[in-house]
Amino acid sequence: MHLFYTPDLINKIHTLNEIESKHCVRVLRLDLGHEVQLIDGKGGFHRAKVIEANPKKCSVELIESTFEYGKRNHFLHIAIAPTKNIDRFEWFLEKATEIGIDEITPIFCEHSERKTLKMERSEKILVSAIKQSIKAYKPILNEPVQLKEFLTINFKGVKFIAHCEENQKNSLKSAYTPGQNTLVLIGPEGDFSPQEIQMAKHNNFKEISLGESRLRTETAGIVACHTINLLNEY
Amino acid sequence: MHLFYTPDLINKIHTLNEIESKHCVRVLRLDLGHEVQLIDGKGGFHRAKVIEANPKKCSVELIESTFEYGKRNHFLHIAIAPTKNIDRFEWFLEKATEIGIDEITPIFCEHSERKTLKMERSEKILVSAIKQSIKAYKPILNEPVQLKEFLTINFKGVKFIAHCEENQKNSLKSAYTPGQNTLVLIGPEGDFSPQEIQMAKHNNFKEISLGESRLRTETAGIVACHTINLLNEY
Repeated sequence: MHLFYTPDLINKIHTLNEIESKHCVRVLRLDLGHEVQLIDGKGGFHRAKVIEANPKKCSVELIESTFEYGKRNHFLHIAIAPTKNIDRFEWFLEKATEIGIDEITPIFCEHSERKTLKMERSEKILVSAIKQSIKAYKPILNEPVQLKEFLTINFKGVKFIAHCEENQKNSLKSAYTPGQNTLVLIGPEGDFSPQEIQMAKHNNFKEISLGESRLRTETAGIVACHTINLLNEY
Repeated sequence: MHLFYTPDLINKIHTLNEIESKHCVRVLRLDLGHEVQLIDGKGGFHRAKVIEANPKKCSVELIESTFEYGKRNHFLHIAIAPTKNIDRFEWFLEKATEIGIDEITPIFCEHSERKTLKMERSEKILVSAIKQSIKAYKPILNEPVQLKEFLTINFKGVKFIAHCEENQKNSLKSAYTPGQNTLVLIGPEGDFSPQEIQMAKHNNFKEISLGESRLRTETAGIVACHTINLLNEY
């Protein structure tokens, strides 16, 4: 399978951009008539054939189109504090995409160790991950936002905040009902502050734990992601 | 909390090794009377105080000992093919330890891209992970073994092989009953071969899928690990 990401796919005949064209013709050495697959990041999965093997402007013609390819049966949004070590955050982006996620928002919190994020780099990770796991939907990655601002989000579904503070709280597993659209907040290395937790509760976020173990931020993100996906599995 | 890994802890008075001693006295700058915590990797969690702040031979005296600290309620063994990119395999070791695992065996399969493994390096990852997630049990890491040989293992519990071949198979979620001791095989980048799957079935391994998504080896390992842990969560 030779998968290309073509978010601006409109017509039956499509020209790959320069990078993709070079990859197609010089690296994969595909030629006239060879088949490729295109994903548009919005659910479209297309089979196509090469009609002009130009290494700078390779053209393909659609043969067969599938829409809503691999459409998910629930909506999952994770808002997570980017880790100081960017590799860890990028692991999260890749793994969450493989397992299944719709939307990701980087949040800056009181105890955040990282206050900036290179969006272009993060987007590349997501595109690479959907190609590798043959998904036609690319997770939406929002611009980073301060937690305080994010908490006022208008979200149609259930909202959770995961934290390590000692108090009575349900596990995500027991608090979640399959089929619900979900938003989960994952805090930075030093956890959310008590004030942040109160603010979240004030905005109708339910406090949950992610099990008995003490998890790193990126691990918590993957555990939350997989918990929701597993509970929605038939 | 200042956690030290002391697998050879026997007596009430214990001398930290040179590396730990230096870390204790020069880095953490702990002194007489300061409290530290010791984990022995076998369930022992001990509070202790510094009685000699020697940067090469720091001595501590036990104050309070807890045994079977964080004892798990089910046994999980994952046998997984080390990935070509060692970072990915080490990511699996760290995350599986955070989430919860008892034993790990690296397996070399027909399609394995990696045929060697640095055990010392892998052990360091496990020790670092149990310290970071404050676990008193260190997962057992076995020497790598050929899959063919591993399949004859005498394991008291249920045995699964996860693979991507198209055929009728249950998801791990539906095949597993909470409380059971579990062994899961995770294949290399090119999956298990049909012959390897047959051999596994012949040795009473049940075929399972890990959901609808196409997962990388290390992601499959974490998904299997978390699935078993989540299903055993109250």
